[in-house]
Amino acid sequence: MGLLDNVENVQDIKKLSNQELEKLAEEIRQFIIKNVSITGGHLAPSLGVVELTLVLHQVFNSPKDKIIWDVGHQSYCHKIITGRKGKFSTLRRYKGLSGFPKTIESEHDCFNTGHSSTSISAAVGIAKARDLRKEKFKVVAVIGDGALTGGMAYEALNHAGDLQTDLIVVLNDNEMSIAANVGAMSGYLSRIRTDPRYGKSKEEIEQLFNKIPKVGPRVLKTLERVKDSFKYLLVPGMLFEEMGFTYLGPIDGHNIPGMKGVLQSAKKLKGPVLVHVVTCKGKGYQPAEVNPDTFHGVGPFEPETGEVIKKEGPPSYTKVFGDTLVELAEKQDNIVAITAAMPTGTGLSKFAEKFPWRFFDVGIAEQHAVTFSAGMASQGYHPVVAIYSTFLQRAYDQVLHDVAMQNLPVTFALDRSGIVGEDGETHHGVFDVSYLRHIPNMVVMAPKDENELRGMLDWSVKFSGPSAIRYPRGLGVGVELTKEYPKIVKGQGEVLEDGKDLTIIALGPLVYLALQASAQLKQWGFSPAVLNPRFIKPMDRDLLIRYAKKTKRVITIEENVVAGGFGSACLELLNKECPQAEVEIIGLPDVFLVHGAQDILREEYGISASVIVERALSRWPLMKEHHK
Amino acid sequence: MGLLDNVENVQDIKKLSNQELEKLAEEIRQFIIKNVSITGGHLAPSLGVVELTLVLHQVFNSPKDKIIWDVGHQSYCHKIITGRKGKFSTLRRYKGLSGFPKTIESEHDCFNTGHSSTSISAAVGIAKARDLRKEKFKVVAVIGDGALTGGMAYEALNHAGDLQTDLIVVLNDNEMSIAANVGAMSGYLSRIRTDPRYGKSKEEIEQLFNKIPKVGPRVLKTLERVKDSFKYLLVPGMLFEEMGFTYLGPIDGHNIPGMKGVLQSAKKLKGPVLVHVVTCKGKGYQPAEVNPDTFHGVGPFEPETGEVIKKEGPPSYTKVFGDTLVELAEKQDNIVAITAAMPTGTGLSKFAEKFPWRFFDVGIAEQHAVTFSAGMASQGYHPVVAIYSTFLQRAYDQVLHDVAMQNLPVTFALDRSGIVGEDGETHHGVFDVSYLRHIPNMVVMAPKDENELRGMLDWSVKFSGPSAIRYPRGLGVGVELTKEYPKIVKGQGEVLEDGKDLTIIALGPLVYLALQASAQLKQWGFSPAVLNPRFIKPMDRDLLIRYAKKTKRVITIEENVVAGGFGSACLELLNKECPQAEVEIIGLPDVFLVHGAQDILREEYGISASVIVERALSRWPLMKEHHK
Repeated sequence: MGLLDNVENVQDIKKLSNQELEKLAEEIRQFIIKNVSITGGHLAPSLGVVELTLVLHQVFNSPKDKIIWDVGHQSYCHKIITGRKGKFSTLRRYKGLSGFPKTIESEHDCFNTGHSSTSISAAVGIAKARDLRKEKFKVVAVIGDGALTGGMAYEALNHAGDLQTDLIVVLNDNEMSIAANVGAMSGYLSRIRTDPRYGKSKEEIEQLFNKIPKVGPRVLKTLERVKDSFKYLLVPGMLFEEMGFTYLGPIDGHNIPGMKGVLQSAKKLKGPVLVHVVTCKGKGYQPAEVNPDTFHGVGPFEPETGEVIKKEGPPSYTKVFGDTLVELAEKQDNIVAITAAMPTGTGLSKFAEKFPWRFFDVGIAEQHAVTFSAGMASQGYHPVVAIYSTFLQRAYDQVLHDVAMQNLPVTFALDRSGIVGEDGETHHGVFDVSYLRHIPNMVVMAPKDENELRGMLDWSVKFSGPSAIRYPRGLGVGVELTKEYPKIVKGQGEVLEDGKDLTIIALGPLVYLALQASAQLKQWGFSPAVLNPRFIKPMDRDLLIRYAKKTKRVITIEENVVAGGFGSACLELLNKECPQAEVEIIGLPDVFLVHGAQDILREEYGISASVIVERALSRWPLMKEHHK
Repeated sequence: MGLLDNVENVQDIKKLSNQELEKLAEEIRQFIIKNVSITGGHLAPSLGVVELTLVLHQVFNSPKDKIIWDVGHQSYCHKIITGRKGKFSTLRRYKGLSGFPKTIESEHDCFNTGHSSTSISAAVGIAKARDLRKEKFKVVAVIGDGALTGGMAYEALNHAGDLQTDLIVVLNDNEMSIAANVGAMSGYLSRIRTDPRYGKSKEEIEQLFNKIPKVGPRVLKTLERVKDSFKYLLVPGMLFEEMGFTYLGPIDGHNIPGMKGVLQSAKKLKGPVLVHVVTCKGKGYQPAEVNPDTFHGVGPFEPETGEVIKKEGPPSYTKVFGDTLVELAEKQDNIVAITAAMPTGTGLSKFAEKFPWRFFDVGIAEQHAVTFSAGMASQGYHPVVAIYSTFLQRAYDQVLHDVAMQNLPVTFALDRSGIVGEDGETHHGVFDVSYLRHIPNMVVMAPKDENELRGMLDWSVKFSGPSAIRYPRGLGVGVELTKEYPKIVKGQGEVLEDGKDLTIIALGPLVYLALQASAQLKQWGFSPAVLNPRFIKPMDRDLLIRYAKKTKRVITIEENVVAGGFGSACLELLNKECPQAEVEIIGLPDVFLVHGAQDILREEYGISASVIVERALSRWPLMKEHHK
């Protein structure tokens, strides 16, 4: 019987010795590997912080003390030891545990996270609330070196350093964000880690000072100043010190007694403290240590070998995007590609290999990614910015203010648009139609399949203004990838099926649901047309108006919230140009969607052929009669 | 005849001596003061950088070399010496010069700015485009210490330090953002400026080393390390050095020969260089030097005395907001107020004075402002975050992901919603309805007048979830401020005028236009109802449906883009619940609006009573006949 069997909640680890904690850490690792090999999940980040998590829960007293996990994908060990071990096999499953901290799951999750770099801001807010109320508890933000490249983390450090409130930031430095880390800050952290001066210089310097024979008062004053300057030598994290933090570290994030000592000191210090902990991403699982990028977020895999269980089927949209961009870039040398720390996730790795000088990984910094691209575009380049739909939310203002307002030629490749599945609530890309289509000058597209994605990308890199292509997470439809790209004309959709008394306008691959629904509706007496609008903006006005006038009935379907979405845009158009048409809008409801497999969620939220059929029949019940 | 008379374009200043530049600087100051006293504008920022601008244009060769002005409100001198002196009296006027850099105005404006902290990102993009194309020119970003608190500036520094491309960042340090600067970075810059060590220590330290008699090899090694550490002593901007920049400074931003020397050195250096220039905001104009906050952005004033010419009339929405929040905070002690560097602009100064511990100025850092508020809200506080509509665009993701997703009680006070007037394109608050209303859990309101604003604020600080109140720039309507706040019920609008055959639903103070239009339409035989919806979300469904059913005709009007806006929301509702109603939507077109006085722009873009009348008459031309 293992130690983990006796751990139900944090109280059960409070009295464990360091050696027991080490043993428990090993058991938890095996437990995580076993479970995640089945459910999939953020394996490498969670394996890296097992010891850190155990020590945090011994040194601090959660839930009274607040621990905030930046991004939150490293919180598996935290979940396991805070009452959720029994449910861990439901991780990321529909109605199961979330892959991220959730206040509704446990009192030990004090603040929800999901997007990067928010934890210090939240921690400062929680700490100030405590101060105002004169309460006594500790606030700890655990943030990776990757997340530290996000600007809002710096905004929060700047504020915390100014406020001088008690607050502990644990910098979990694994030399990675999701892929290898980038940026000057990363170089700085690396210098701290490797500089041989730290640790052994102090003694030597004192010896040196003893060799100075005699000093007059003027030299003595200078000497004081010089001694002052040694803090730079002796305190490696001077950058953080200058920002108003007390810096402790770097310390080994897998050495339990060492961390415990430092965190206990940190607990006693006044004001903001930064504890620099060096961990190994994927620690303890050889395949993840070797390929932390692959095992950052991973699907089911073979635990013995680490072999990822490949889904059979057509290539993913991501892969088709990446391959096509390489083809286009071979012919068009003003194309450059930009990612915010996700070269693999966005499909840009191949581009990066082929065109290293034209590829830019700016770190987890979507705002900079977009305005940096605007800068390049202003000089005649055509940047393709590949950012997941949910993460581009971070750069809404930069898209609007820096790109669209100057009408610059930038392509936004919005992977993971629509329902993303297991990552859930914080990661669904179900707002992009609504947050992009009201931006002047923006062109917004959705391809019906992976081949059309190629055509749209080809079109967009030749277009003189800003455009966005939204495409879903997962495998393509399985259509042939034609040698010639499908021809795209700005603002032109296509008729997939002609009809007389109903028009179904379906966004992106939902056209396939529309075609299924159409087949069923024919049996009910309808004669449906099916349109692929291609462009959310500008819409194919002529096509839509023509079909609305002809069929009088319109159904729209999209994987975006209804509010301000594609159907709403159709309404705005048809209300003006064909007010007599009756329009039925199908889309996502006004709630934050839960997590679970994409197909389950599509059923749950009514994105299906049968819903199209039901809505048609209930709105126009007399159609069947009528047609007889 | 002055020197300025002979300056039409940058070529004319290239050969001026330092003394002539000094004289020219004085003339330009007088020219700016004279003009801005009439037009209004960003006086203090522009006065602070006159010498810097002249030196930049002597040392660099614009338009080949690129100069990017962060925010851009300090670009008046730049505009004057780059061919726009003759048009300077049209500054900020309709069809006149913009108050910000505009590529369409001049080849010397290489990148448009308006929102803060974008310049380094743009500069890095421009520099990398140059590198790829193997061109040779210099790229200079001029950024204030205030703008440096914005996270994206740090994201860009981090990337630039990593890329090591040639790039010059001029840090214009005036110890202010808009109000007094905040944050640890500000403290750091201040230490650099005031530390007596800098400048005179080097010599003393060398003397000290000479006093060390003899050194063995081991001590020699240590000595090297110690010498290494002196860079911290001798290079005050070590924080920037650690970020990969060569730091030069601090230098006096009003000393022309000094700046010239340093900028010429900077021009020769490889890699990214940060030049720290210390300036005085409002320099040379006593009233602005004394009150740089007031003269940051100012309306017309008396140039002799600096007395701001007050607009007669009712209190502004800003003032009513600020006063009401103080009243509410006296009774409700969990209210805290947050600003992103605009305590005066947002009306929070009085709150800050009365409740210093409950007031937080986080610097120009909207993202952090919002998530910091979420942190406080998670602990039982009710933060009121006052950010202009256009600047909240920066925190769209934080509103969605950190506040709304956790359904936290935070009030967003969106001042300057709608057409803002002279600041123009980059500053109009005409997207907020579209970017907020699709966020689940959000409540979005618009008061019809300043008294209703009080009621909504009162309601919102007691509401358990997130809400936003959008209100316009400028003076209130002039209604009585009642002792008791108007009673607001979630999702309930009001009927201002009953009618039979047309419903005008007008957002915010546009109800007054609707009432005017109604009076006119009565003469044409209409019997219009006028509704004040109060809530954009959730809408007063019952009221809207009832009136749509009753009158069959609906006109909506809003000062927001039509796409995804309020009218669009009405359509979504009525299409479902009352499809037989005919709906006419009036709102702003799908373009970025130009600058000019609010009333001129409202006419230009069709926000008027007469447009309501015209649209009604053209859509329903038979009404007059019909009613007879």
